[in-house]
Amino acid sequence: MPHFDPAGAWRRALHLAEQAIGLSDPNPRVGCVLLSADGNELGAGHTQPAGQAHAEVMALLDAARRGNDVRGATAVVTLEPCSHHGRTPPCCDALIAAGVARVLVAVQDPNPLVAGQGAARLRAAGISVELAEPLVADAARELNIGFFSRMQRGRPFVRLKSAISLDGRTALPDGRSQWITGEAARADGHAWRKRAGAILTGIGTVLADDPRLDVRLVPTARQPLRLVLDPHGRLPAAARILQPPGEARAIGPGRADLPALLDDLGRQGINELHVEAGPTLSGAFFDAGLVDELLVYQAPMLIGEGRPLAALAPLADLGQARRWRLVEAVPVGPDLRLRLRPT
Amino acid sequence: MPHFDPAGAWRRALHLAEQAIGLSDPNPRVGCVLLSADGNELGAGHTQPAGQAHAEVMALLDAARRGNDVRGATAVVTLEPCSHHGRTPPCCDALIAAGVARVLVAVQDPNPLVAGQGAARLRAAGISVELAEPLVADAARELNIGFFSRMQRGRPFVRLKSAISLDGRTALPDGRSQWITGEAARADGHAWRKRAGAILTGIGTVLADDPRLDVRLVPTARQPLRLVLDPHGRLPAAARILQPPGEARAIGPGRADLPALLDDLGRQGINELHVEAGPTLSGAFFDAGLVDELLVYQAPMLIGEGRPLAALAPLADLGQARRWRLVEAVPVGPDLRLRLRPT
Repeated sequence: MPHFDPAGAWRRALHLAEQAIGLSDPNPRVGCVLLSADGNELGAGHTQPAGQAHAEVMALLDAARRGNDVRGATAVVTLEPCSHHGRTPPCCDALIAAGVARVLVAVQDPNPLVAGQGAARLRAAGISVELAEPLVADAARELNIGFFSRMQRGRPFVRLKSAISLDGRTALPDGRSQWITGEAARADGHAWRKRAGAILTGIGTVLADDPRLDVRLVPTARQPLRLVLDPHGRLPAAARILQPPGEARAIGPGRADLPALLDDLGRQGINELHVEAGPTLSGAFFDAGLVDELLVYQAPMLIGEGRPLAALAPLADLGQARRWRLVEAVPVGPDLRLRLRPT
Repeated sequence: MPHFDPAGAWRRALHLAEQAIGLSDPNPRVGCVLLSADGNELGAGHTQPAGQAHAEVMALLDAARRGNDVRGATAVVTLEPCSHHGRTPPCCDALIAAGVARVLVAVQDPNPLVAGQGAARLRAAGISVELAEPLVADAARELNIGFFSRMQRGRPFVRLKSAISLDGRTALPDGRSQWITGEAARADGHAWRKRAGAILTGIGTVLADDPRLDVRLVPTARQPLRLVLDPHGRLPAAARILQPPGEARAIGPGRADLPALLDDLGRQGINELHVEAGPTLSGAFFDAGLVDELLVYQAPMLIGEGRPLAALAPLADLGQARRWRLVEAVPVGPDLRLRLRPT
C-alpha cells in the first residue's frame, strides 16, 4: 500500500520541473504533483511555454483527465504558486478552487509580484502551506538560477562556456580548435545551451569559425536567441548563426557596455545567458566580474603554444587573481566537465 | 564468530603494504596477513627497509610474538613470495618451514629472478597457491607501479607533477608561483614525493626558486634522492636542495640524455621518479614520450599571461596532440588533483 513519501514526491516534482527546460522561458521551470493523503499520485504537470498553463494548472488538468478527485489533496510544487494575473490567471486561485488542502512549496518565488504573497493567499483560503527543507529548496533554486538572477538582480545568470586542453588552450595559435573535446562533451555543451534564454558570442568568433551556436545535439522545443557583439557592422549576411532554427541578431554598431547589455537582456526576459566566445570577449566578462558560472570542458591533452581561454588584464600579484569555487568535476566521455562559481 | 573473509583479508594486506611506502625502496611494498581457517588474524607485517625482513617474515615473527601457531594457516600476500637469495633468505622457504598450508597471492612478482618460481616452489612443497581476482591484482600492481616498471622496462615509472591554474599557468610571467594551489594540495604533493625513489628537477628551477624538494609535509622514514640536471655546473653549493635531510646530487656536466638517465636510475634501484621541474625540462620529458603519469594540481583561478606547464614542440595539427587518459579527478582542499596516463 502506498504511503506519503515527501522525498519521493520532491524527486518527482523536480523531475517534472526539469522537463520545462528549453520550453518555459522566460517563465520559471516548475513541477507540480498532486497526491492523495496516502501518497497516490492524482495528477502531475510542469510549466508550459510562456502564455500557456503553469505547472499547478497542468497538474489539476491531468487529475481531471484521469478522473481523480483532488479535494483534500496535497500539492507538491517546486516554486511558490503565483498570486498575480500575468498572461494566465493566478495558480493560487486554481488550487483554492480545486479544494486542495495542503501545499508543499520548495522555494519562495523571487518575483517581487509573488514573493510570499502566493503562500499568504493560500493560507488565507485555509490551505496549509509548508516550505521544503534546504536541500530541496537549493535544488529548486538551481533549476531556476537564471530566473532568480533576473528577478533579484534584474539581469541574467551568466554562464561562460569554454573547451580547453589540460594546459588551458582553446585552439592552436592559428585558431584551429576542431576538436579538442570529444563528442560527449559537445553534446553536453548543447544541453547547457538549451538552458539558456540567449547565447552570446563576438564577431571575431563568427568571422573565424562561422559557428551556428544553436541547440542541435540534444532535443529542444525552443532555440535560444543568438546574439553577436558586432561593433563595426562586420556580420556577414550569410553567417550560419543567422540561419534557422531560432532567431539571431547583431548587437551594434558601437562597443557594447556589458553591464548595460545584461540589464537590457534581463528586461527582455533572458534568465540564463550562455557566453561562448573568443579570448577577447571572454576576458572582458572576466575582467568585469560578470561571470556567474564558468563551464569548462577540459580535454586530457597538452597543446603547448595556443589560444588562451581568455585575454585577461595582467596580474600584479597572484593574490590579485580572483578565486573560484569548484562546484563540480564530472567526467564526460574522455573529458572532464568543470563548473566553477566566484567565491 | 569470525569467518574467512577474502575481501577483508585483501584490504588488510594492501593496507599493510601501503605502510612500506617511504620505507622499503628499492624493494617492493608488500603486505602479508596470516589467517587461521576461521579467519582469525595470527600475524601481520610489511616489507622493512632494504636488507631487512620482507612482509612474510615480518608476519611470521608477529605470529610468534603473539604466541600463535601458524601451522595450517593461510598467508595472504600482496606480491608473490620471493624464491631467491637476495640480501635476505627466500620468503618461500620461511613460509614452507612455518607449515603454512595455503598462500593467496595478489600478483605475480615481475622480478625475473622470481616470476612464478616463488609460487612453483611453494606448490612443490605441497602448499596450495591461489592468485587473487583482477581487481586485487590491479591494486597490488598500482602500489608497486615503479617496481614493476623497473623490473619489466629497466627504468623507473616517471610521474611528472605540476601545479597549474585553470588556464594552465604555473606562475606569473616573472616566475612568481607562491601560491597557486592551497596547503592541502601541497601536503598531498609531498605524499606523492614520498613514494618516489628520486625527485628530479632542472638547474633553472633551482636557480629561480631554490626549492628543497624534500618530503616534509607528511611523515616519512626515508627521503628520496634529489637530482638536479645541471649541464653547465651552475648549482650553487648553498642551494637548499643540497641540504639535509636526504641526499642530493647534480647530474652533469653535459646535457643529460633522458632515456639513458632513466636506464641509469633503473640500475640504481629507483622505482618511481618524481619530476618536478620548469617548462623546459617538463617539455623535454613530454616531447620524448617519457611521462608515465601526469599529476596535476589544478587551482580554481585564472592567471592570464604566465608560465606554461611545459614548453612543447609546436603541433602541426590537433590530431598530433598526444591524448591522455584521465585516471582520477579528486578535490584536494579547494583544488583538484588530476592524474593522467598516456592512452
